[in-house]
Order: sequence, then C-alpha cells, then structure tokens
Amino acid sequence: MTGRTTPLDTPLGDVFHVYDTTLRDGAQREAISYSVADKLAVAGLLDTLGVGFIEGGWPGALPKDTEFFARAAAGELELRHAVLVAFGATRRPGGTAEADPQVRALLDSQAPVVTLVAKSDRRHIERALRTDVAEAAAMVADTVRFLVGAGRRVFLDAEHFFDGYAIDPDCALRVLQAGVDAGADVAVLCDTNGGQLPLQLAETVTEVVARTGFRVGIHCQDDTACAVANTVAAVQAGATHVQCTANGYGERTGNADLFAVVGNLVTKLGMPVLPEKSLPELTRVSHALAEIANIAPDTHQAYVGSAAFAHKAGLHASAIKVDPELYNHIDPATVGNGMRVLVTEMAGRASLELKGRELGLDLTGREAEVGRAVRRVKELEARGWSFEAADASLELLLRRELGEPSGVDEPPFRLESYRVVLDHGVDGTVIAEATVRVHVHGQRVIATAEGNGPVHALDAALRKALRPHLPWLGSVELADYKVRILTEHPGTDAVTRVLVQSRDGEREWTTVGVHGNIVEASWLALCDALVHKALTAQEPVS
Amino acid sequence: MTGRTTPLDTPLGDVFHVYDTTLRDGAQREAISYSVADKLAVAGLLDTLGVGFIEGGWPGALPKDTEFFARAAAGELELRHAVLVAFGATRRPGGTAEADPQVRALLDSQAPVVTLVAKSDRRHIERALRTDVAEAAAMVADTVRFLVGAGRRVFLDAEHFFDGYAIDPDCALRVLQAGVDAGADVAVLCDTNGGQLPLQLAETVTEVVARTGFRVGIHCQDDTACAVANTVAAVQAGATHVQCTANGYGERTGNADLFAVVGNLVTKLGMPVLPEKSLPELTRVSHALAEIANIAPDTHQAYVGSAAFAHKAGLHASAIKVDPELYNHIDPATVGNGMRVLVTEMAGRASLELKGRELGLDLTGREAEVGRAVRRVKELEARGWSFEAADASLELLLRRELGEPSGVDEPPFRLESYRVVLDHGVDGTVIAEATVRVHVHGQRVIATAEGNGPVHALDAALRKALRPHLPWLGSVELADYKVRILTEHPGTDAVTRVLVQSRDGEREWTTVGVHGNIVEASWLALCDALVHKALTAQEPVS
Repeated sequence: MTGRTTPLDTPLGDVFHVYDTTLRDGAQREAISYSVADKLAVAGLLDTLGVGFIEGGWPGALPKDTEFFARAAAGELELRHAVLVAFGATRRPGGTAEADPQVRALLDSQAPVVTLVAKSDRRHIERALRTDVAEAAAMVADTVRFLVGAGRRVFLDAEHFFDGYAIDPDCALRVLQAGVDAGADVAVLCDTNGGQLPLQLAETVTEVVARTGFRVGIHCQDDTACAVANTVAAVQAGATHVQCTANGYGERTGNADLFAVVGNLVTKLGMPVLPEKSLPELTRVSHALAEIANIAPDTHQAYVGSAAFAHKAGLHASAIKVDPELYNHIDPATVGNGMRVLVTEMAGRASLELKGRELGLDLTGREAEVGRAVRRVKELEARGWSFEAADASLELLLRRELGEPSGVDEPPFRLESYRVVLDHGVDGTVIAEATVRVHVHGQRVIATAEGNGPVHALDAALRKALRPHLPWLGSVELADYKVRILTEHPGTDAVTRVLVQSRDGEREWTTVGVHGNIVEASWLALCDALVHKALTAQEPVS
Repeated sequence: MTGRTTPLDTPLGDVFHVYDTTLRDGAQREAISYSVADKLAVAGLLDTLGVGFIEGGWPGALPKDTEFFARAAAGELELRHAVLVAFGATRRPGGTAEADPQVRALLDSQAPVVTLVAKSDRRHIERALRTDVAEAAAMVADTVRFLVGAGRRVFLDAEHFFDGYAIDPDCALRVLQAGVDAGADVAVLCDTNGGQLPLQLAETVTEVVARTGFRVGIHCQDDTACAVANTVAAVQAGATHVQCTANGYGERTGNADLFAVVGNLVTKLGMPVLPEKSLPELTRVSHALAEIANIAPDTHQAYVGSAAFAHKAGLHASAIKVDPELYNHIDPATVGNGMRVLVTEMAGRASLELKGRELGLDLTGREAEVGRAVRRVKELEARGWSFEAADASLELLLRRELGEPSGVDEPPFRLESYRVVLDHGVDGTVIAEATVRVHVHGQRVIATAEGNGPVHALDAALRKALRPHLPWLGSVELADYKVRILTEHPGTDAVTRVLVQSRDGEREWTTVGVHGNIVEASWLALCDALVHKALTAQEPVS
C-alpha cells in the first residue's frame, strides 16, 4: 500500500500541480545539510501550506533520504494535502529496470509517486551517459513501465531539456515520448543549467505543448535571475505543473522560489493554486523553513521578506499612510506579511492575538495588555530575538503580560548564579563542568555536572539540582538545539541567538534566548523551556 | 560647462543606455547609507565598467547628494565612459519651473543630464499630487523645457507607468507626450510598485513603442522577483535604455540587478552593452560595491555570486571535470567568476582533484596521496566536518597529505592547554575569561583575556599570547563566525560545527572545526585560520 497519488483538499486538485523539491534539489544549496528530523519537519510545514507534491529525496542514493522515506512510511509523516514523491534515475544503460538496485530502492521507499530524471540533451546522452539516443529512450521507457506496473504514478524530469531542444529537438522529444508512452503522466521540462530567459522559454513550452499534447511541467534554475519569471511564463504558455523550492534554495544560484511563484500565480494571474487559508501562511512558513535550513531569511525576498513591503519613509510617508494600496503591489496581509513602517506592530499584534486564541485566552477588552506585549516583542526583536520559531517563549511572554496563570509569575525555580569551566588539558582531553546555584521550593540547591560542552554541562547541572524537587522534569529532554550568530549591524558586537527544542514524550516546544555570550543565551532558552513545561505540568493537557 | 551628454568609448554609444541608479534608487535599500566619499567611489567603479549613465542622487533634496554633485563638479570624479545624471522632480503644481528651488538645484548640480520623475498614474495625480491630468502634463512640459533650454539633456521617469497605463492609458501617454514634446529624449516606463510579470510587461512596452514612436526606457522593481526578467523582456520589446542598480539594491525587494541584466543582454542576447574588457570585471566590481555598501555579497547572485558556478552534486563531478560547459550556462571566466566544486559527503576523487587544481596544487602522479586525502575527507565528513564552505581547511588537509609545504608540518605555534571560565554572578553579570598556554618560537607563553563569550575570550587570549612573536598576526581579524549543532544521529551525542571566516585586508579565508564541545570546535577552526595565514605569510603572493 503506497496511498493516494493525487493532492487532497486543494482547490485545483490534480489539474495544476504545485510540486516542491526543497528536500531534494533545495538540499543541493551550499551549506544546507538537513537531518532526517529536519526533513520530516520541512515536509510537515509544506503540507500545511497545501502544496500538491513533496519530493522527499533520492532513496537508495543517499542514506539519509532512504531513512527519511522509511520513517515517513512508518507513520512519522502524515500528509493531509500533499503526496510524497521519491526522486531517482532511470535504469543503467544496458541493464534492466527490475534488476537495477537504484530503481528497486525507489519502490522500496513506498512513495506513491516517483519522479524519474532522464537526459534529453543529445550531448549529455553521448558524452556523460556514453550511450545513444535509442538506448536513452529505452532506459526511460523500461523504468517508467516497471514503476507504473508496480502501481506507482510517474513524472519524468527531462534534464537539460531547453538546451537539448535548442540543438536537437527530435532527440529531446523522443525521450519525452518514450516516457509518456510508457505511462509517465507529466513531462517536466527542466532548465537544468538555468540559462533561459522568459520570452524564449515560453515559446519553447508553447511549441512542445502544441507538438506533443503532453501534460507539461516546468523546473527552472536561477542562473539568469529569471527562475521565477521563467516558471510563471511557462504556466502562461501551458505548463500545469511547477517545480519549486522554498525560498529558492538550490544548487548554484538556486531554484524558482516557491513563495514568489505561488504569490505571482495567485495574486497576478488569479490561479488558486493553494488552499485559500494557506496564502496568509506564506511568510510564516518561509521563515520557519529558513530556520530549519539554518539560513538567515532573505530580508529582500519577494512577497515574504521582512523588507518586501518596507518603505524608507521620507517623501511619500503621509501618502503611503493614507493610500497604502497606491504604494504596494498587493496588500501585504494577503501573504501574511506587513508594511514595514507598521510591520512589527501589525504582525506582532496579529500573531499574539492568534496565539492567545489558540491558547484559549480571552483577549477581548484587553487591548492595553496586548499592546504591552506587542511593544515587548518589538523591543526584543530589535535586539535579535525571534519568536517566529519559538512559540513557547512567545506564549510565556504573552502570559506574563496578561498576568496569567500563576505558574509564570512564580517560576518553579530561581537562579542565583552559575559557573562553567572548560579545560583543554595538556593531554588533549577536553572537559566541561558547570555548577549552578538555584532556589526551588524555598531551598537553595547547588549542583555540579559535567557535559560534552558548556551548554550540555549547564543543562545537566540544572536538571541535577531541580529533579529531586520537580519530579515532572524527568520526562523533559532536549530534542534540538540551534545557534545563529547575528551580525546584522557591522561595527557592533555580534549577539548569539539560541533556539532550544524540548520534548516530553507527548509534545515538543521551542524556546529562544539571545545574548552576546552563547552560554547565557542558551541558559535563557533552557530556563524558558522548563518554565513552559511547569505551566503544562500544572495544567495537564486533557 | 556641464560636459558631454553621451557615453564615451562604449560599443553601442548612445544607441543603447546602461543607466545605473545605485546611488539614488539603490540607496533606498534598508541599511544602506552612503557617505559622499562612498558615492564617489561607487561612481568611479561603475565608470570603470563602462556603464553609460550614473545617476548620482537628488541634489537639493538630500544634502549629501548636493555635496556629491559639488565635489564631482569640482574635479573629484573624472568619468571616462559614463555621464553623470541628477535626479529630481518636476515643478510644483501651480508654480513655474524657473522659480522652483528644487528645479534650480538640478541646474546648480551642473550634471549634464537630468532625469525628471513624473506621475503618470491618474490615481497618483489626483490622490497624491491633488491636481488634474492637464496640470500634471504642464508640470512635465514646463520643467523639461526649462532644463533643455538651459542646455541639459533630459530623461523622463514615468512613475507607476504600468499600473497607470492599465487603468487609464490615455492619461499615462499624455504625460509622456508632454515630456517628449518639450524635449525629453527618453521616456522611461517605471514599474514603481514592482507588480509586473514579463509577458504582460513586454506587451505594454511593444504597444507604447508602436503608439508613440518614443525612445523608451525601462525601470523595474523586484516585488514579483521578476525585475531582471522584466528588464530584459522590455529590451526585447523595444526599450533601448535600462535602469538598474548594482546587486539589485533598492527599496523593498530591490531593483533590477545591473550585473544580471548586463550578463543576460551580453551573453544571452549578444548585445555588446558594455566595453568588451569590462565583462570579466563584473564579479570583482559587484563584490567591491557590496563592500562599500557594507552588505555581505549575495553568494547565490546570478553571474557574480561565489556560488553561481559551484557544483555540489558529487555524482556528476567526474562528468563536470571532463565537460564543464555541459554543466554551466556560460563559461564563468566570461564574467570574472570561477567554477567551484563543493566537497561534500558524496565527494570522490574527481572533486578533490578539481579542488586541488583550483588551489594551484600539482596532483599529477600523486594518486596515492590524493586517495589518502579522499579517505580523510570522507572520514571527517562522516563525523560532521564540512569542507564545502571551508576552503582553507581543505587546503591544509590536502597539503598535509601531500606533505607540502613545510609551514603545515611545522605549525607556527603549539597548544599546551587552555581554560575558559564563564560566570553568571549573583548580580546577573556574565563574564567570560580564557587562559591559554602555548609554545611559540621555543618559548612557553601564558596569556589571559576576557571576551563577550567563551570563543571571543579564547580568541583574544590566543592573540595576546602570540602577537609579540608572530607580527603578521596583527592584520588577521575574525570576519564571521557560524555555528551549527549537528544532531544527525539521534541517540548519539550532538557535535558542533564551527565555521570561522578570517580576513587580513587582502583576502578572506574560511576554516572549520568540529567537536562535541563548541569551544573546542571553535579552537580548532581558529588554529587552522592562523596556520593558513602563516602559510601565505611565508609565501607572499607576488
């Protein structure tokens, strides 16, 4: 059983595919290295947006990808909208599909859809693959037929299609034809080297659609800075399947940015390619995906960048205030963004109100407290804090401003001091040791512990001190720990932002800490994590 | 005397204008704040590229811009190719051009060319300008006539043109007509809110050119991520004047990137819009302009980004080695960039050999050493090291395996031990202090220093210990510091990967360290950074 092969609860159903390849092609970006847990989180976020297909990786080729599909199939990934796709290559020249271990790995992944990459440029077939066009077409046909026979839906990525079509259109079309005849149901034209410009690319797409009648998809790289434009132009020329990556991550200059492509298709061309409720999530999801990739969000990114609707005051300030629609190409709220002059104010209030509602807190008639919380968020964010990925810290902040419930005002413990010592000895051993002095239930407790590093030692010492007094602490463990050095303002000292993800077997929550000293930043996030646990320990979730 | 009004020694002369507005519209980007000296340096660099026009700012409106034009006119800026342009607005409603102080300031700037911005969208005329279309057209006509009468060449920037043309084409064209009739010789169509897509925009440009016969220019903002594509599409539709900014700097999402537009026009459309010798300067000038703007260069920028020709796919590395032109949309050297092979977990011998060649190491006949280096890289990467962004550490590794040169085998210093102490005191203050014991030039040195955090303190103590013995250390500084916690294998201990970017005024280099303890990981990267500097300090670049 591999499950459904068409998107669920998306406005256009199977008629138009928003196909995301962040986890495969996006991972080709320099410095991105997703863990399997990261990949599961990315897929989950993309699914909440309502994309139609999520390409999870290349099982069989990369051990991490194999593990990702195994864990997804074992129930760690439940997709409500999207279909999971495995990416892979056709059989080797001269072999058979069923005997090819790489093709078998695609079946073993249990992904209901497989996207096969095939060479369609004669030069690549002859010089890289070292075979001829007939065998290249046979490799496609055999592999597609084998996978379709095994119950899979198959899409065909025609690599280097546009370059190949320019020098030998018959060869390029022959590869497509072999795939479609064997049962592939989207022929994806790939601008693999990214050298296309929109007007030419649109002409080629129009011509291919007219000559073949195939269902055509588009996959663009950004080497001419035209990946988004090329993708949209291809849709206008007849493509009904767009392959994109979150924030345009990808090899070299990257791929077509999912958020800009979707923004353009929805707001400029009126195509409802995502569920209506998803569009205002674009900004939040874009930033969350940047956090997982551990890449600073691009402030100047179209639609979702923090500066995308920022106006450097001056001349038009008053006009903008009166008539914002004269100075923005869309209403920023459409994509969950805000105009910068008001950005923190608007986004802060909206997300806090949303958070409050989610927590069942009644905020009606409490404008003053919400206003205070918004100002506090604004003030902290100016100093490098970020609550986008740290829901638990945001909740604590909101509860503090609202003065409820008691768990927050009376935290379960209070720090007196800590000391961390790191020793690199003459024999090369490295030791980290932390001592904490805390007050808990009216007692002063001192505890010392060792750890792999300063934060681990501090965490261990804190738990050692508190565990006898706070039994619920036993179930809490550190699930993930992320660090970013912020050097936004050259000339001033860098600050360190730490995100701590905790879990207790039932749920996961994330907290944030910011300080010039990484250990102190970690301490702040660790303390928030435990305070948040105390809150729910006192109010058990039903 | 205001000088020539047409570009000098550029292949297309006055027939096609590359018009740069980095100093005016680019300066609208958040966080950019050019000094007058910066502006002079930017103009100088742009001129060496051979752009046709350099818009220097808005004299009369911004004191820094007024000063820039005064100093340029006084001889501080000698342009060999470009013409200096002053930007400004038309006269106020109901007034006269000659009595308008803002218009007079344009004359006073002594710039030979003036670009006037005019509203061409009826809604803006009525709601922001609070006048009618007839008066808006008269404002344009009067001001152009006055400036042309005073010997200036005038271009007309029609603000919000595309939005205005969509709702009231006659109004939009009437404003253009007023300017051209009065003597403006380029009608620049501006997508001020940046909402256009290439196919529509090209249609509008074609239509305007056909209806008016005017010389048409194009100015695009990047709000749909299509500024470059829109600019190129406009040229294909008949525009002969493109307004761009270096690196796409500009308000909100920015403007059309000069380097991508030029790259596309020259390499894709075969238009020699810059002097032939300039193209290989694109990468260098782009990075130099980023330095002046104090913005980190965008590694993924088209044509000029450091990752623009970086290949991660280990699988294809051997094919890339044989046939680089199959995997790059252009030869990177064309724009002064280079191909980089990212050494990753999938890396094999081919990518390391490519890397060696890139570093200038002769690897012929040294299969055994290369084989050892490949195994070492794989072994380290399995433990969390990553060399794709740490060229300097990779070079040291390769040199160590090759046994050359001596600087690597005999590092300039040897660690005995270090100790770092972090104290969060009862008063809430946080202190970081480090003590290092090192051997350098046969002496044992002990030094203690404080820092913002543990790594900063360790770095400070190490420099304090070494500086009296290694004078070249003085020029080395820490440019950037990145941390990633790797939790790839749940259940096992996390390790920390640290990337340290160093610079010495001449070059930048990156090193990597991995350890369970973040401070030890940082120590490893810091040491590699100094060993790499020692290497080049001993082998001075000619």
